[in-house]
Amino acid sequence: MRPKLEDVAKRANVSKTTVSRVLNNRGYLSQETITRVYQAMKELNYQPNIVARQLYQKKTQLIGLLFPTIANPFFGELSAELEKRLYNEGFKVLIGNSMNDPKKEADYLNQLLSKQVDGLIVGTHNQGIKEYNYEHLPVVAIDRNMNQDIPVIESDNYAGGVLATTYLIEQGAKKIIHTNGPITLDSPTKRRRLAYEDTMRQHGLTPITVTLDFNIPYHEKKQILTQIFYDHPDLEAIFASNDIDAALIMQIALELGKKLPADLLLVGYDGTKVIQNILPNLTTIVQPIEAIAQTAVDVLKARLNDRPTESEYVLPVSLKKGTT
Amino acid sequence: MRPKLEDVAKRANVSKTTVSRVLNNRGYLSQETITRVYQAMKELNYQPNIVARQLYQKKTQLIGLLFPTIANPFFGELSAELEKRLYNEGFKVLIGNSMNDPKKEADYLNQLLSKQVDGLIVGTHNQGIKEYNYEHLPVVAIDRNMNQDIPVIESDNYAGGVLATTYLIEQGAKKIIHTNGPITLDSPTKRRRLAYEDTMRQHGLTPITVTLDFNIPYHEKKQILTQIFYDHPDLEAIFASNDIDAALIMQIALELGKKLPADLLLVGYDGTKVIQNILPNLTTIVQPIEAIAQTAVDVLKARLNDRPTESEYVLPVSLKKGTT
Repeated sequence: MRPKLEDVAKRANVSKTTVSRVLNNRGYLSQETITRVYQAMKELNYQPNIVARQLYQKKTQLIGLLFPTIANPFFGELSAELEKRLYNEGFKVLIGNSMNDPKKEADYLNQLLSKQVDGLIVGTHNQGIKEYNYEHLPVVAIDRNMNQDIPVIESDNYAGGVLATTYLIEQGAKKIIHTNGPITLDSPTKRRRLAYEDTMRQHGLTPITVTLDFNIPYHEKKQILTQIFYDHPDLEAIFASNDIDAALIMQIALELGKKLPADLLLVGYDGTKVIQNILPNLTTIVQPIEAIAQTAVDVLKARLNDRPTESEYVLPVSLKKGTT
Repeated sequence: MRPKLEDVAKRANVSKTTVSRVLNNRGYLSQETITRVYQAMKELNYQPNIVARQLYQKKTQLIGLLFPTIANPFFGELSAELEKRLYNEGFKVLIGNSMNDPKKEADYLNQLLSKQVDGLIVGTHNQGIKEYNYEHLPVVAIDRNMNQDIPVIESDNYAGGVLATTYLIEQGAKKIIHTNGPITLDSPTKRRRLAYEDTMRQHGLTPITVTLDFNIPYHEKKQILTQIFYDHPDLEAIFASNDIDAALIMQIALELGKKLPADLLLVGYDGTKVIQNILPNLTTIVQPIEAIAQTAVDVLKARLNDRPTESEYVLPVSLKKGTT
């Protein structure tokens, strides 16, 4: 069997990234490391994939963005902020909406790689993405855990969950329900749920989380959320894990003849400009979209230039008090 | 002076497109036309620009999208629908947000062209774009008049304006104000304004249009819209040319203690999913975003394959009756 890059790394007792740097003559390397890697290559009769190296070295000034869908205002505004900053750095942006479909996602990645993007910024949900071999491509993740080599930019989801839950408790609510996505996802956003559950328990209250799958049709989601009101007639407050769900809950409450905040307290999450403009009364946790975009671009630039990066960047969130 | 493609076209008494097709051996051409073009080239000693031809012939399977900003839900949803369809046709999407800035727009076009996109779908506002030489690049415009060679896909803006205004008149309103963008823009959306003004006059009513510039900050826009209520205390209805403005007007009315629809009738425009989900009560003119996207992709494909296209495609809109 032909020796692989991994085999060279193993024999030279260095990381795959280091072998790749030696091959591509990038970043800081000690003479000792270089010698050790070439020695291992010789011993294994390793032939670097010349085409892959050429592809790698050829700069396209293209950055791929991969998000569930830019039709969601959070990803729409985030993509626009990313695009603006990448434009100012001389990059153009290739965009893909994975719609949380693993097949589509894998396909996008293949295609983006074949279009020779210089780097990727990824905010998709799926696990499959982890299996990808990003050896030759700088990748930055937003709000999603990928693998250890890929830095994650996120807002402080745990603090956001604590802020929202504490605020509702301070307003006097005891029966507080939380809505969130499937817990199986290895996403930093599930920390909102953990923070809600921890905070409830710390106050001697019982956490109740209602799970909403992604991509369920609008009317089905409305049905599940409406059912909450029937299942819990003593419901006092809801903490929704995004503003779109919060808006729908607000609408259902009004249809059921409930007044906000008298009959129901409600806190959303995201705080996009669109939602803040359209529903200025919604109390919500505001994610720092501009700072997330700026950090993602800075970290990607560091990766592109072989500069070291942290594995996680956590940005502060804030509570926007509306009247709900 | 070196002869240009135009000179060949003139001498051969054919269009520039035909000369281009002969050079690139694309599309249907009669032997007579081919002979005539080659004859003209010979007489003028015309040397086709080989590099340009090679660039032209090299397919990248990349399509550029150029919109004001995908942070606006209409363009966000439209871009997502376009991207989905282009993906299914094997294309990847390069995206640019021009923010209605002519310099940024020209810069994008240059960069998109240098990245060798196979085609462009453009929905920007500026005039400068007209001056571009698209000879070698299939372009489709959405809701924007470009030049004669570029097909425009639009929803029926005039019918939308008539629908909205007639609805408000039927509800008994006489003092109806319209908000819209600058009239100087050569955009099909100004037909909403024309339709409003025509319909008002046909009913013996006086049209009053309040102009809102693009890119003005939120608080400034809010100030201008608030002023309408003070300038026109007898105001009965507003027809806003987009839902974002309608949402802001709704909010201002509520802040001024007005109830909808008792104190103010309101009709918006666009009908994106996000707005329909968040403000289900808003009466609005719904643009067929999916049909617009599908038509744009079909027309672009026709252009890419040298099949003939219409110069304008007008898609029907509908009135969604809410409670405003």
